[in-house]
Amino acid sequence: MAVSFEVPAGAYRHWRLAVDGPVATVTMDVAEDGGGQPGYELKLNSYDLGVDVELADIVQRLRFGHPEVRAVVLASAKDKIFCAGANIRMLAQAEHAWKVNFCKFTNETRLAIEDASAHSGQTWIAACGGTASGGGYELALACDTILLVDDRAAAVALPELPLLGVLPATGGLTRLVDKRRVRRDLADVFATRAAGVQGKTAVDWNLVDEVVPRVRFAEHVADRAAEAAARSTRAPGGHAGLDLPPLDRTFTADRLDYRHVHVEIDRANRCAAITVDGPDGPPPGSPDAIDASLWSLAVVRELDDAVLHLRTNETEIGTWLVRTRGSSGAVLAADAFLLANRDHWLVNEVVLYLKRTLKRLDVTSRSIIALVEPGSCFAGSLFELALAADRAYILDGTLPDGPDTPASLTIGAMNLGPLPMGNGLTRLATRFHHDPEAAQRAATHEGEPLAAAEALALGLVTAAPDDIDWDDEVRIAVEERASFSPDALTGLEANIRFVGPETMETKIFARLTAWQNWIFLRANASGPEGALRRYGTGQRPAFDRHRV
Amino acid sequence: MAVSFEVPAGAYRHWRLAVDGPVATVTMDVAEDGGGQPGYELKLNSYDLGVDVELADIVQRLRFGHPEVRAVVLASAKDKIFCAGANIRMLAQAEHAWKVNFCKFTNETRLAIEDASAHSGQTWIAACGGTASGGGYELALACDTILLVDDRAAAVALPELPLLGVLPATGGLTRLVDKRRVRRDLADVFATRAAGVQGKTAVDWNLVDEVVPRVRFAEHVADRAAEAAARSTRAPGGHAGLDLPPLDRTFTADRLDYRHVHVEIDRANRCAAITVDGPDGPPPGSPDAIDASLWSLAVVRELDDAVLHLRTNETEIGTWLVRTRGSSGAVLAADAFLLANRDHWLVNEVVLYLKRTLKRLDVTSRSIIALVEPGSCFAGSLFELALAADRAYILDGTLPDGPDTPASLTIGAMNLGPLPMGNGLTRLATRFHHDPEAAQRAATHEGEPLAAAEALALGLVTAAPDDIDWDDEVRIAVEERASFSPDALTGLEANIRFVGPETMETKIFARLTAWQNWIFLRANASGPEGALRRYGTGQRPAFDRHRV
Repeated sequence: MAVSFEVPAGAYRHWRLAVDGPVATVTMDVAEDGGGQPGYELKLNSYDLGVDVELADIVQRLRFGHPEVRAVVLASAKDKIFCAGANIRMLAQAEHAWKVNFCKFTNETRLAIEDASAHSGQTWIAACGGTASGGGYELALACDTILLVDDRAAAVALPELPLLGVLPATGGLTRLVDKRRVRRDLADVFATRAAGVQGKTAVDWNLVDEVVPRVRFAEHVADRAAEAAARSTRAPGGHAGLDLPPLDRTFTADRLDYRHVHVEIDRANRCAAITVDGPDGPPPGSPDAIDASLWSLAVVRELDDAVLHLRTNETEIGTWLVRTRGSSGAVLAADAFLLANRDHWLVNEVVLYLKRTLKRLDVTSRSIIALVEPGSCFAGSLFELALAADRAYILDGTLPDGPDTPASLTIGAMNLGPLPMGNGLTRLATRFHHDPEAAQRAATHEGEPLAAAEALALGLVTAAPDDIDWDDEVRIAVEERASFSPDALTGLEANIRFVGPETMETKIFARLTAWQNWIFLRANASGPEGALRRYGTGQRPAFDRHRV
Repeated sequence: MAVSFEVPAGAYRHWRLAVDGPVATVTMDVAEDGGGQPGYELKLNSYDLGVDVELADIVQRLRFGHPEVRAVVLASAKDKIFCAGANIRMLAQAEHAWKVNFCKFTNETRLAIEDASAHSGQTWIAACGGTASGGGYELALACDTILLVDDRAAAVALPELPLLGVLPATGGLTRLVDKRRVRRDLADVFATRAAGVQGKTAVDWNLVDEVVPRVRFAEHVADRAAEAAARSTRAPGGHAGLDLPPLDRTFTADRLDYRHVHVEIDRANRCAAITVDGPDGPPPGSPDAIDASLWSLAVVRELDDAVLHLRTNETEIGTWLVRTRGSSGAVLAADAFLLANRDHWLVNEVVLYLKRTLKRLDVTSRSIIALVEPGSCFAGSLFELALAADRAYILDGTLPDGPDTPASLTIGAMNLGPLPMGNGLTRLATRFHHDPEAAQRAATHEGEPLAAAEALALGLVTAAPDDIDWDDEVRIAVEERASFSPDALTGLEANIRFVGPETMETKIFARLTAWQNWIFLRANASGPEGALRRYGTGQRPAFDRHRV
């Protein structure tokens, strides 16, 4: 059955959300019988994909629906346990591809928490009233501040390596040394000690920010939340917040239709054609008039959902062809509205959401080819789709049955700063990492429709076939892609999409994730005698002792 | 049979070395029947580990033995082919661990070429008189300049993905976008086109620096080499160069003994005890008096060989305990001699070689624990061994049968700059990435022997057990390490050793290598129907089409 990433508003099975003025409290209370598949119970606030889909929804709704919230406390409803991490039996029984995709989504959710702390004035505070273990501690690591109760029982721990033979790879090892900057030898000790670390040592090693006796814990958490809220620059403005309505979407066997985004699957070629429609009207006059139908918001919600759906439920569809349809001027006008009102909290959220969704594309293990055809509107925010693609083809000329005006693309202000990739660079700067002058040259054409020859000369597209060659070129690219090893393509794209600098975020998806994926395949973890499979059986794992 | 990394001087089977004044020519002429294992022929200048061991030796001997050489031309003796890359049948029949270790060594050799271009005034020029394909092009990428003959036949190519279902992972993808800064969509096209790219397009995409007609090729290569030699800052000085003699080494079943380095293997605990002896005398009075017995050079040659031997031939030995023995003062005097004469080309080579060997440790998939005991000399260059270790324990006190003076360690100038890790930081700065002030505080103690309590307080060691606890602490650490999944340890260490920034070099060992290792394990590459196994059989590979 297809996994859905939509959560009906407020209908959380595993979480409770309480908003009290500027402070929201998100309480993890995982339903043991609420697992997405049979075969495991979600004990001790352990989680599976369904639990995390709800968390991602909460992060999102807090940002869009609650202008008043300036600090978020992440807590647990369970006695003595904050969160025990990803459910081990779920992991043990999962297929490799599921494990990898699950980790990718949970990584993105934790990055969304950090994005809220950094850019939305909603500082997340992990209030660990009990042990935070494995993915539970990794969840705390995604928060800005970690408070741990000091009661001789509560600890923070990364027991993945000693108990399960895998890594703490939902960002854990990277955040340990690159975010919290735990000294590498202490990180080594910590990540090999199943019982974890508690009390003063946890503070000394910078694993947590403070330990607080239980009698004062609740009060201390409230104080820290109030302080964070007081420091926040989130400005409510005149908008009461958006209650994001359910997406208007229709799924059939080989089609997904949203209002602005349409997906058609060609199973023979293992290819999905994604078409994104531009705005059908002008932006509103004021940010206070924004509702959920705002094109910039609606289109990114739909695109985000389509990406998640295809990524999770259509793993054999290895190539995505991305087209746009509509008026470039209208896209640029929608962008201009956002950028002119960027200091409005809700507009800021729309831009940040677009940024996150484009980042999802960057780490998606599918070949992405942008097709710039007559009638398309690859401008500004939608031109980012072409910049995110592995290749972009522009048609030089017109097609017999198509619009009369040749295709063009347009650089907009959205391409020049507000939408950085995980590596900290814009996609345009990443593209021209070889030649910063070429980037500047391209930028001087901001706002001008660039026809095929010009786009090619400026280095903005991969090729510009004419109308005679177009269909063949596209067909060959698709067929060729479908003939290659899907694994090798995943590795290729993961390498060449991220040119230049690395950040904590890109290290999580590269260094950490790639090693974890390797470990997940190894018999020492996932074989019948491996640590992941034998955990909880009473039998010790049997390891191949050779170091690779 | 154990692989040896020693090559008797000049006895190359696969290469020819010719020195003509300031220009050396290294000609690849691989013997088809010279493979290290049965089952494959080294056709078309394809290589296996033995071929690369010889190349590494050449790079080394050019640096130590040839003060006059200021440019190196890398050429091929074969008609129409520069180098076809790693031998595919060798890869197809190799065990996973062999493949991974082979790639690690070849990566290190290519980095040594770049180190020679960057720091030894020996600029390498790839003279591709024929096609450079796969690992052959990756070898060219390691050179400073790539010249390709322009004859409608010669091309550069990375056919790994389309033909073999694996990545160009001997640095290929990373150097493509981060060194040569090929635009990412062009890199995508290039790395999926088995036939490669030739002529003007190869120059336009920056895959090569120049294409030159065959009639002018030899002359042009000579001109470019002469120009590079003229630009070189390599200053011959008064030393004629060292002809590195064979290592004085004795291997028995569980011991390796060199002059200064001793290794004892404890198979029950899957542990190797490595002891490095300090200098037994003062440094020479002048750099011109250096011979191969110079402690700083001899010890690093021995250590390098021991690391390679253990890494390749002792894969079940997962933990390395590193001790030193001797006078800290003598180590610091040896270091001071090197640093006072750093502008002497040969001294410079010794420091650079030490740097490279320490980097080998950093990427070695073994747990490294430094044991700082009474009588040890962890000072300056040898203190780097403790800084490279995953943990360092210092004994607080003395042992009944040991020396009377308690253990200490000493920061020296060698710890403060000349020996950066691949991430560009010193090991001390990496260690204190969390706290630059702590790094400065530690540096103020340069030259002072730091006893256990002080070393612990300064954050230079992981723990400082006393004489009562020492043996137990060490035993427990070793036993615990031996109980863990070797794969998970490899992943852990690969992540937490590299804190902070990434460079092209670290990206090769992390992002690129980790993805390749994952792909190597996948049936799409290495299964009986995988692309690597089916290559050359006439049968097409059968792929699992799911994207992970």
